[in-house]
Amino acid sequence: MDAIAETAESNVDVLIIGAGPAGLMAAAWMAHCGVKARIIDKRNTKIMCGQADGLQCRSLEIFDSLGFADRAWKEAHHMIEICMWNPGTDGVIRRGDRVPDTIVGLSRFQQIVLHQGRIERFFLDNIKKYSGDSIQVERCVLPESLEIDESKVDDEAAYPVTVKLRMLKEEEATPQQQISGSTVTDGLFRSNLIQEDDEDDLIRKSKARAGASEIVHAKYVIGCDGARSWTRRALGFELKGEATDFIWGVMDIFPITDFPDIRMRCVVHSANSGSLMIIPRENGLVRLYIQLKEVTPDASGRADKSKITPDVIFSAAKTILSPYKIDHEYCDWWTGYQIGQRTGTHFDAHGRVFLAGDAVHTHSPKAGQGMNVSMQDAYNLGWKVALVAKGVCRREILNTYQSERRRVAQELIEFDHKISRLFSGRPAKDVTDAEGVNMEEFKKDMFLKGNLFASGLSINYGPSSLVVKPGDAAELGDGSAKSASLAVPSPITVDEFSKKQALATGLPVGMRFNSFKVLNQSDARPWHFQERLKADGRFRVVLFAGAILSVAQKHRVDAFCAALDAPGSFLRRATPPGQQVDSVVEVLTIHSSKRTDTELLRDFPDMLHPFDKYKGWDYDKVFVDDVSYHEGFGDAYTNYGVDKEHGCVVAVRPDQYVGWVGDLEDFEGLQRYFEGCLVLRDGTVPENGAKAEMVH
Amino acid sequence: MDAIAETAESNVDVLIIGAGPAGLMAAAWMAHCGVKARIIDKRNTKIMCGQADGLQCRSLEIFDSLGFADRAWKEAHHMIEICMWNPGTDGVIRRGDRVPDTIVGLSRFQQIVLHQGRIERFFLDNIKKYSGDSIQVERCVLPESLEIDESKVDDEAAYPVTVKLRMLKEEEATPQQQISGSTVTDGLFRSNLIQEDDEDDLIRKSKARAGASEIVHAKYVIGCDGARSWTRRALGFELKGEATDFIWGVMDIFPITDFPDIRMRCVVHSANSGSLMIIPRENGLVRLYIQLKEVTPDASGRADKSKITPDVIFSAAKTILSPYKIDHEYCDWWTGYQIGQRTGTHFDAHGRVFLAGDAVHTHSPKAGQGMNVSMQDAYNLGWKVALVAKGVCRREILNTYQSERRRVAQELIEFDHKISRLFSGRPAKDVTDAEGVNMEEFKKDMFLKGNLFASGLSINYGPSSLVVKPGDAAELGDGSAKSASLAVPSPITVDEFSKKQALATGLPVGMRFNSFKVLNQSDARPWHFQERLKADGRFRVVLFAGAILSVAQKHRVDAFCAALDAPGSFLRRATPPGQQVDSVVEVLTIHSSKRTDTELLRDFPDMLHPFDKYKGWDYDKVFVDDVSYHEGFGDAYTNYGVDKEHGCVVAVRPDQYVGWVGDLEDFEGLQRYFEGCLVLRDGTVPENGAKAEMVH
Repeated sequence: MDAIAETAESNVDVLIIGAGPAGLMAAAWMAHCGVKARIIDKRNTKIMCGQADGLQCRSLEIFDSLGFADRAWKEAHHMIEICMWNPGTDGVIRRGDRVPDTIVGLSRFQQIVLHQGRIERFFLDNIKKYSGDSIQVERCVLPESLEIDESKVDDEAAYPVTVKLRMLKEEEATPQQQISGSTVTDGLFRSNLIQEDDEDDLIRKSKARAGASEIVHAKYVIGCDGARSWTRRALGFELKGEATDFIWGVMDIFPITDFPDIRMRCVVHSANSGSLMIIPRENGLVRLYIQLKEVTPDASGRADKSKITPDVIFSAAKTILSPYKIDHEYCDWWTGYQIGQRTGTHFDAHGRVFLAGDAVHTHSPKAGQGMNVSMQDAYNLGWKVALVAKGVCRREILNTYQSERRRVAQELIEFDHKISRLFSGRPAKDVTDAEGVNMEEFKKDMFLKGNLFASGLSINYGPSSLVVKPGDAAELGDGSAKSASLAVPSPITVDEFSKKQALATGLPVGMRFNSFKVLNQSDARPWHFQERLKADGRFRVVLFAGAILSVAQKHRVDAFCAALDAPGSFLRRATPPGQQVDSVVEVLTIHSSKRTDTELLRDFPDMLHPFDKYKGWDYDKVFVDDVSYHEGFGDAYTNYGVDKEHGCVVAVRPDQYVGWVGDLEDFEGLQRYFEGCLVLRDGTVPENGAKAEMVH
Repeated sequence: MDAIAETAESNVDVLIIGAGPAGLMAAAWMAHCGVKARIIDKRNTKIMCGQADGLQCRSLEIFDSLGFADRAWKEAHHMIEICMWNPGTDGVIRRGDRVPDTIVGLSRFQQIVLHQGRIERFFLDNIKKYSGDSIQVERCVLPESLEIDESKVDDEAAYPVTVKLRMLKEEEATPQQQISGSTVTDGLFRSNLIQEDDEDDLIRKSKARAGASEIVHAKYVIGCDGARSWTRRALGFELKGEATDFIWGVMDIFPITDFPDIRMRCVVHSANSGSLMIIPRENGLVRLYIQLKEVTPDASGRADKSKITPDVIFSAAKTILSPYKIDHEYCDWWTGYQIGQRTGTHFDAHGRVFLAGDAVHTHSPKAGQGMNVSMQDAYNLGWKVALVAKGVCRREILNTYQSERRRVAQELIEFDHKISRLFSGRPAKDVTDAEGVNMEEFKKDMFLKGNLFASGLSINYGPSSLVVKPGDAAELGDGSAKSASLAVPSPITVDEFSKKQALATGLPVGMRFNSFKVLNQSDARPWHFQERLKADGRFRVVLFAGAILSVAQKHRVDAFCAALDAPGSFLRRATPPGQQVDSVVEVLTIHSSKRTDTELLRDFPDMLHPFDKYKGWDYDKVFVDDVSYHEGFGDAYTNYGVDKEHGCVVAVRPDQYVGWVGDLEDFEGLQRYFEGCLVLRDGTVPENGAKAEMVH
């Protein structure tokens, strides 16, 4: 026996279980925030081909905040147009319509496609860069037990979660991605289309430990371990929902075809043979999603997977695409699935163990949502856990995770339910054919409304300590008791809120901070403003300073900055002694006067461009809404709906969501916002921030 | 003694001496073209701070062709605006004017600043990626002797150059970048501002070999070993020109200052204390170029370098910038120099040993030209040597290197001569002050004309086998006998040429192929067309197919493609047996019909989207000049000055220069162009390609 007897024991702030995109996103936050964390995965390698691959606009904005959107953008296939093919009255398929794949003007990014392995690679490189190697994925590691010491869950200093880990031998850790009957050998290890991705070193380390056990005491655990989540089962939580009757096959091939739109995203509804979706990919690959009408669920509702083979799938594709011909010499990956739509009942236990990604929602892959929503779960959760673990944020904010993200999961399932039916249904023969799918309705729901939802940009979080808006926290959250209980430290009436929101109509409170180009006041370089909202764990106050060269407006700005600079201000009280004034909350300014008439040092209070005795003044915090030489005019004030004379103030969460909008004179409102979510020094308990009970 | 007795002996196609930006550029070509090459450097590490740092538009276009412009663009400081500060009648400096740093619309890139060490890192990564580790910089290696066997210089199979190498011990290879008197220790090894750049592995290898010698037999040698080039001296060639009286100091600091334009590129002419240039850099650093009026050359014309210290330099800066205050806590690097303006007499020996970069031109650093022109030398030379070494191109094309690049060096020195005087001169007091520098003239010459020259985009190569245009080869080249002797296989009259050039007025023959956005016909993705002209060693035929949906135009395109496809065509004869039809010359198409009315397979001959039995049709070679959803309208036909109905044909060199323009019916002209530069199969000696004598 090669089992090792000794059992090591250690503490860690955050333990992440699962190193797919959601787990890696959580780990990236820990790296960017400087939190002590570990990330384990039972597999012995990352994904090499196949799997999820669509990246929506919001995911790219998030990648940009971490620093690697450019790598994805460069390598990916760009999805520009969707073509809809429907049967004519003769039953022959024809191109019926074209729509842009991404709604024009929605984001500075558009939807792209790149296989999951490359995305995991970007995460791994990014985590390495920011953590200095201190966070590395530990592969071939299996969690065996998880216990929460409930007596300690409210103790900030405690490590209330105990997880026992076992180091696997290599043969135990080799994933089986393949379904029987394929002539293509296991897709995980054989693609020659992608760059080599050598993890020999990690695997060698794993081998050395094989058989050993370890006890980890963690402040927080994040379970990102997929649809069959071990963490979820260890907590006794469930996914609720059901499987549909629709069975689909997927293949990644080099297509040899005369179908004219093979490099477009296509939805093909054949008259009677089912539907097919084409997703063109990087390197000339094309993914086909193919409805398998011949394979049907048995009495128990489950499909017999042994009936799904590459031949069955491809022959269905040929029939659907007929009279066009399609063939292939090379298949990179294939699989089959039955659409199941399920949501987790609970997203956390005691505010100490959290679930994200497929562990709490499963649905069909065709809207390209799976990896995106999973990563976005972890993007929502990661900074909250990191900042609470660091003592920067109040523990109450952790309750917003379920409230914000379970609602998204619910909407996702609803969306998926609708489009699955539209996808898998038979096209209507004419207007009287009520059982068939009306193609106009399909276009409207799937691509016009659907693309907005699918972009990830329609998300609007409900009221909480992080989002100051009116309304019922449960109703605008996930409807759970946890959501209902959210402490809203600054309750606000609909009228009050309307006045505030009117100051920045293009920045709805609860939605992500949209991006327009502005220029650095000091060097005239154009930036998409979102590029300045980096994922470094800092909250931001964006001061729309208005017409700074007007004397009256300058007085307003001076007064606002004086309040910021006062000893009792949230900014002073949130900043740990000895740290830079911008270490917890960064103040960024956008003004609307003419750039060339304005000077940073002369026209703006010091607070807006802090001095450092080593590096001098900070020239990277004040921007101007003016015309650039080479990149046009962002017209940011107009696009953000902010008055060019009077401006306003916006509080932005570390994940780029708008938390609060107010006037320059409403410093008290801003102060209350931060009192509700930040831990402020001087021992003062903020007035409206009475400690909420964690609800489980 | 630890010298090793045995002397290894080996053959290599190309030996590159010097691993600065020029040497690395040459090595990158070898990697991209798959040529067996070695690159040696006597230093034991690459540059870590200081040194050249401005990157002009053309350099970025070149980086993009290699695949790493995005990395430079992301990390660099972007230079947007130049501010000119001049003394008023009261002698106090004031901002007199602002101009954009890069002429608007000149390129898709603008000038940026990033230190040389990062650029070398991008090259190293790129070379590794494309050569698969087969080309690695061999550090601590010194060339000791170089011999050319003149009897073999015309023998394609021979290795006529013999170089003896010696492996240095580490202490011999540590560069001394510093001038005495500095409190800042040697800049090469101590910057903490930049990412760690671990070359331990290479250094370990070097150590193991220390003391050993090696004899290398090379087909070609490229000397990129700087202003004191060992290679140049070994060939007995000289730099000719002279030193000026102007002495300048340079410092990289974090400035602590109230000068308002410290993050702009500034030229400050003080009334009587000399001039200063400000170059803001990445990470908050600022470079100051400071005229040292107190330090003057001695009788021999040389400045006493011991008089140049950081204190002397910075105190001059303070005086020039007064009444503004400037100070610093941190200096990253500093140096002093006397402007010398010299050009090499010869750029090659026997078409076997070539010199590039500082080895053949030195000048002042202030126009940010040094690294750019050096890299561009090697970009011009690298593919020529690679393709001749591979047997793809005729040896005669090597003569165009001196003709094309020595002329650029001559123009550079002329430019530098002019601006050095304008920079270093005292500002004119009024219009009658003939000895002073007129500030309007300065603005015009330096920034309006100067910036075009400095961008690298005004280069226009003279007639040769690579550039079909009329005129005197010597006069439009470097004026040398080598230039005069250039074989121009397709001599063309001014009238004939005007007719051809009129077909594409925006693509002047001899200049680089400008870039506008077009869409991929098959997936609607917008591309800057230059992105499709990758540095892979291929020539390209760009077929402006015009209104492909018109029947008459379709017939013209069909006829052109039939000629391309005929057994005797240059395309067929240039392609080695068994290789893809696009392996030597790639045909790219841009048409002007409406994208959504057009279909690749239906409307274009197979030749324009070649079939591969494994990957299917090629969907990446046909583009359309149409409106995009998200990135506007490139209006490429209008911008290239090509008729939207009738189109034209353009031959493009591997370095993106336009070699030939003609009509679709002028296949014979196109054939002659390629007969003049390519080695064509079937043993046929092309009619007009009589073998030219290499002139030395």
